[in-house]
Amino acid sequence: MPSTLERLDCSRCDATFDAGRLNTLCADCGSVLLARYDLERAARTLTPSALAGRRTDQWRYEEVLPGSHDPLGLGEGMTPLHEAGALGRALGLERLFVKDESLNPTGSFKARGMAAAVTMARQLGVRRLALPSAGNAGGAAAAYGALAGMQVDLFLPQETPAPFRFEAVVYGARVHLAPGDIADCGALVREGTEREGWFDLSTLKEPYRLEGKKTMGYELAEQLDWTLPDVVVYPTGGGTGLIGMWKAFAELERMGLLRDARRPRMVSVQADGCAPIVRAFERGEDTAERWKDPWTYASGLRVPAAVGDHLILDALRESDGIAIAVSDERMAEGQLDMARCEGIFGAPEGGATVAAARALTERGWIRPGERVVLFNTGSGLKYPDIPGLDVP
Amino acid sequence: MPSTLERLDCSRCDATFDAGRLNTLCADCGSVLLARYDLERAARTLTPSALAGRRTDQWRYEEVLPGSHDPLGLGEGMTPLHEAGALGRALGLERLFVKDESLNPTGSFKARGMAAAVTMARQLGVRRLALPSAGNAGGAAAAYGALAGMQVDLFLPQETPAPFRFEAVVYGARVHLAPGDIADCGALVREGTEREGWFDLSTLKEPYRLEGKKTMGYELAEQLDWTLPDVVVYPTGGGTGLIGMWKAFAELERMGLLRDARRPRMVSVQADGCAPIVRAFERGEDTAERWKDPWTYASGLRVPAAVGDHLILDALRESDGIAIAVSDERMAEGQLDMARCEGIFGAPEGGATVAAARALTERGWIRPGERVVLFNTGSGLKYPDIPGLDVP
Repeated sequence: MPSTLERLDCSRCDATFDAGRLNTLCADCGSVLLARYDLERAARTLTPSALAGRRTDQWRYEEVLPGSHDPLGLGEGMTPLHEAGALGRALGLERLFVKDESLNPTGSFKARGMAAAVTMARQLGVRRLALPSAGNAGGAAAAYGALAGMQVDLFLPQETPAPFRFEAVVYGARVHLAPGDIADCGALVREGTEREGWFDLSTLKEPYRLEGKKTMGYELAEQLDWTLPDVVVYPTGGGTGLIGMWKAFAELERMGLLRDARRPRMVSVQADGCAPIVRAFERGEDTAERWKDPWTYASGLRVPAAVGDHLILDALRESDGIAIAVSDERMAEGQLDMARCEGIFGAPEGGATVAAARALTERGWIRPGERVVLFNTGSGLKYPDIPGLDVP
Repeated sequence: MPSTLERLDCSRCDATFDAGRLNTLCADCGSVLLARYDLERAARTLTPSALAGRRTDQWRYEEVLPGSHDPLGLGEGMTPLHEAGALGRALGLERLFVKDESLNPTGSFKARGMAAAVTMARQLGVRRLALPSAGNAGGAAAAYGALAGMQVDLFLPQETPAPFRFEAVVYGARVHLAPGDIADCGALVREGTEREGWFDLSTLKEPYRLEGKKTMGYELAEQLDWTLPDVVVYPTGGGTGLIGMWKAFAELERMGLLRDARRPRMVSVQADGCAPIVRAFERGEDTAERWKDPWTYASGLRVPAAVGDHLILDALRESDGIAIAVSDERMAEGQLDMARCEGIFGAPEGGATVAAARALTERGWIRPGERVVLFNTGSGLKYPDIPGLDVP
């Protein structure tokens, strides 16, 4: 079935844009653009029974994805939704699940977004990509860029762990290490874009990474037999995954695919050392001020300012959700708990969701019988150690 | 549908064993045991149309797997069979595929075997596991052991790269580093088995790891619409994957699942620095003498003696296949070729298959129009570097 992509709408003003052209942010107000589909037409063919016989990657939802007639695929998506009985008992939760995104190509959920974004960039004639990254997005961009035969320039903070730099070079990307954090790297990309003829793949400055990532929401619904959980616990750096799932839930409801349209309460997890969304949420603000001197060993959470901050905060509030920060120490404990109870070696960001679920259960915000999904966004293997753990 | 497992047959003598008990090697002659199923019964329900609606992991082939009524699952199997157009052009091959096993849990094909073996060990009352490993099997055993709530003791060669040791400790396994190679580690496991009450999970000394790994063969057939490729290029350490696929092809034929029963020529790839199977194949021997002072940076190929040597050699000869050794330098080139052409960061063992396919195409053993499948058995991320590659 063909994609039903119609146009791109600005998330803030009334401007609308042609999806057949290369777009970045809204040309009128500089805000994030959102892909819009003909959901009525999509609903005619995107049905539970049609899905049973389809390909087993994210492109099974082809009606509501861009470029799906000729996607770049490495096996992204359809990751396991793992019933986490032992970890649930450890946290006092009876119906706990882990969505294990480490089984994506390049070992993280970033593959979903890059598969969609690079597919569209190729269709629209792009030859050179550039982006700032905390690590996993860079690896994914390097892989899909290689598959598409494009040149990829990555800007990574100097402290980025070695495995991220290693994989990027293996894929043939040009790696630039820069002082400062991912926002500083973003400035370097902006600076070079015109001079070098790069297309800037920064998340949400490019409209289709969001579309790839939203498939996490489609899969949740399909894997839970067209219902949604009570609580989704998501580690939040740039926040595109959370925004994407929230968009997916609305699309699913519009298409009549949900047997029960109650939406989950969304939980945004950040690190004590970099918690701009938590601070803004607690202060009741609509956007998040940039965090100074961000630090956490979860490099994917070392994001001091998110382009989509208002969209994250909107989703948290609309869903009756919450934002919570956890310490690196509790995150490390969470990583070990997930590995030793469930056999899943998650990223520190995955460990953060365990710590958050524990804290929210202790304070009664999550109730023991609720269906709770933790997102392990990537593989723990790309981080060279876990604070406090000795390895022979 | 239930498993149709009937019994275990010795691969050499006429002895047969009860699958309801804990078995290792043949109690009569010490050879490898092979699981036998009621394939007539299995064929009634294991059909292409039934498979379309089933779970998307290896347990979809439940009729021909042990313990499949209650499997330990982390999402193993159903890895992508990637059409490798650019890599094919680089090698002069028109129909090249890469079966990308790096997308398994714990980042390698070893997850398949361990899922099956630990599932059965749990059903048969085992509480403590031990095994020697070159790295990936250890990580997989640690993960499934954690999921099953078992204690796992791993014996790894001292030179095992850090990421393998790291993941094993994260999963809570007890890691013992030993001088020498994996065969020396195997001796330490044998020594401790009685004293410590371990169940020895060494490949082929335990009959079900083979059963998990054979699902690679089932998937190949299903992904190629119930035909088999002309050539399968497989990196061979212990060789269980190759033996398992060869067994799968026979089972598929017996069940009438193949539209065309022609079997592939099997290629066993080893490293110049550790090539016992290549040497035995070229000498026309039935078993392989232990290789002295094995060395290659592909730690999974640093296996000087394989328990299933005769089964590997049998499969190569029955299939009109071949065994070939490649240098570490060519292997490293192969890793980069796979990553830069296809966006797949494979293990050195995966790189070895690229080098082997290149050599065999150059000498005319593989013809340009043949359907060739390279097995990338694991993720390149677990190896700390690629010889000759500089990383910033």
